[in-house]
Amino acid sequence: MEIAELGEFGLIERLTKDIKPENGSTIRGVGDDCAVLQYTGERRVLVTTDLLMEGVHFDLQYTPFKHLGYKSVMVNLSDIYAMMGTPRQITVSLAVSKRFSVEDIEALYSGMLLACQEHHVDLVGGDTTSSLTGLAISITAIGEARPMDIAYRDGAKPTDLICVSGNLGAAYMGLQLLEREKAVYTSQVNELKRQIKEAENNGDSQKLSTLNSQLSTLSQPDFSGREYLLERQLKPEARRDIVEALNKAGIRPTSMMDISDGLSSELMHICKQSNTGCRIYEERIPLDYQTAVMAEELNMNVTTCALNGGEDYELLFTVPLTMNDQVSQLEDVKVIGYITEPSLGCALITRDGQEFELKAQGWNPLSSESSSKLV
Amino acid sequence: MEIAELGEFGLIERLTKDIKPENGSTIRGVGDDCAVLQYTGERRVLVTTDLLMEGVHFDLQYTPFKHLGYKSVMVNLSDIYAMMGTPRQITVSLAVSKRFSVEDIEALYSGMLLACQEHHVDLVGGDTTSSLTGLAISITAIGEARPMDIAYRDGAKPTDLICVSGNLGAAYMGLQLLEREKAVYTSQVNELKRQIKEAENNGDSQKLSTLNSQLSTLSQPDFSGREYLLERQLKPEARRDIVEALNKAGIRPTSMMDISDGLSSELMHICKQSNTGCRIYEERIPLDYQTAVMAEELNMNVTTCALNGGEDYELLFTVPLTMNDQVSQLEDVKVIGYITEPSLGCALITRDGQEFELKAQGWNPLSSESSSKLV
Repeated sequence: MEIAELGEFGLIERLTKDIKPENGSTIRGVGDDCAVLQYTGERRVLVTTDLLMEGVHFDLQYTPFKHLGYKSVMVNLSDIYAMMGTPRQITVSLAVSKRFSVEDIEALYSGMLLACQEHHVDLVGGDTTSSLTGLAISITAIGEARPMDIAYRDGAKPTDLICVSGNLGAAYMGLQLLEREKAVYTSQVNELKRQIKEAENNGDSQKLSTLNSQLSTLSQPDFSGREYLLERQLKPEARRDIVEALNKAGIRPTSMMDISDGLSSELMHICKQSNTGCRIYEERIPLDYQTAVMAEELNMNVTTCALNGGEDYELLFTVPLTMNDQVSQLEDVKVIGYITEPSLGCALITRDGQEFELKAQGWNPLSSESSSKLV
Repeated sequence: MEIAELGEFGLIERLTKDIKPENGSTIRGVGDDCAVLQYTGERRVLVTTDLLMEGVHFDLQYTPFKHLGYKSVMVNLSDIYAMMGTPRQITVSLAVSKRFSVEDIEALYSGMLLACQEHHVDLVGGDTTSSLTGLAISITAIGEARPMDIAYRDGAKPTDLICVSGNLGAAYMGLQLLEREKAVYTSQVNELKRQIKEAENNGDSQKLSTLNSQLSTLSQPDFSGREYLLERQLKPEARRDIVEALNKAGIRPTSMMDISDGLSSELMHICKQSNTGCRIYEERIPLDYQTAVMAEELNMNVTTCALNGGEDYELLFTVPLTMNDQVSQLEDVKVIGYITEPSLGCALITRDGQEFELKAQGWNPLSSESSSKLV
């Protein structure tokens, strides 16, 4: 169905009609000039926002709409967890060009609502409009936290332990895999189309029929054994479980960030804002087996991928040295190094004991090579 | 300067380095995963968001960056005032293509910060990224209000008086004027270029020189006497003064909206959500003299422009009939009609006493003719 058939208000009504707020702090949701929220005086409000542009942040050739919706919410919830907060509401703004159907946008929304449901978050408003080209998604997430629980970026102190959740580099490897298969598929299609044109020019109807049949049955890439990498790229999960585990263990991080641009870049943010240096150990950086296999296959250094590949949405945080025992007992959390005096700079200690200065080579969406992520 | 020279973090630092929060509720602003805000338990939090796309919502050929920044903030603040709230914070997300320079984005930001300053609002965060084509601006505004002060859309009751602030249709007339002059200018340029090509082909160097000089000195359109219309389109003001005047006079609107899509469309929202009908009088719709002159010149019906032209950002609200005296004394507010039982529908009473059903012909950014506003 074409979106113009429904119009803006029709589309919004269709997308939001089943939304029922589940948070006490959501007084009014969709349907007025503003959403109305209420927080008690002891809670602070956390606000974060992200703008995702087609062709820069996502490629619809291999990203299903539902996954895109899910991920676009997750990346915002991840920012709330990265302050040790609890997400409560989101607003969603979409700009869509004419090439999208109502069904596309419904699928996008269903992924957003699934993410909301899993994290008990209310969708409370937004804006739906048109764009000349492509799809733009802007999401704002609102959460709450007690003042004493909030983990900022600037609280790291020398001797603090540096911890990361999960493993790193997998989302980046997933992206490489998808990009490679897209290139293979596109070149196969182009080659078949070229041969079809040739057969047409030669009037070779038998060959034409064979080629057309080949084109229509051209197989999708086989990703078996690589599912984990794809999932990490297409369906990242914000680490609420880590925040809950830290709370349960009574561990209050001195600083925290989520890893969206790559470990190096994020760690340097923490060190810059906390006015410290750091040492991390290559051998301690958590990697998944599939990440290592894929890096090998692509002839890439897996440590570089883990340091600079973005979009893992794991949590990076620091805790006082005295918390070593408690933090070591946390599931899916690894200590990878420690905070130092600022004069020592930020460095990686390699497996053979060499020291390399960390560089923030993370994905820079404003660099001149911004259309793909860079290692 | 090219944006790639600075990179994302460099650009953000440059844009936000002088921002100092002025609201007590702003605990932390730019520079972490989230902004941190604090509202007391007696205040509710209002949240609204807008996504503006180049080519759909603004045309950079006649919109200076600073004005664009100012307006993009204003339209969000207007939504907070339309709930009788006080705006306190905004987040700003930008997606910019390579054709924009650092200076462009600085000018855009300076307009945003000017709007913030005038309304005592803190810019507390955002996202800056790239786009393949054009500029996208997403702003979220956060405000506060006492629960009893909030004016929703669904509280209008039969016999309530319908009021509007300021005057209507001027922003739409400003847009028509800009579009007309753009068309004239473009056709003049094209004609000169055609003649230049001809002169080149004929080797007529004297004519060529004259034409090139004409092209370089082609005069900008003369807008004198029309400044008000341009200002309404390019630099709209959110009506905080009306909210303050209502508070001062002890008038609590039963419903309220800001007029962004046109009076008809907004009034029908209020009636639909309040389950009422309405009657408004053509002769009472406030118009500026310049709007009427321009409509005449363009051979348009000025009432239609006032009913369906968008972007005035005036306030539309209803008050109990018993408030007639108080509301009549407010400066720059006019009673234009009254709320009825739903069975009576929504109608306009013309100057000659005829009744016409209101239609929401306001600007629909998802309609098939979405690139310009429609009457």
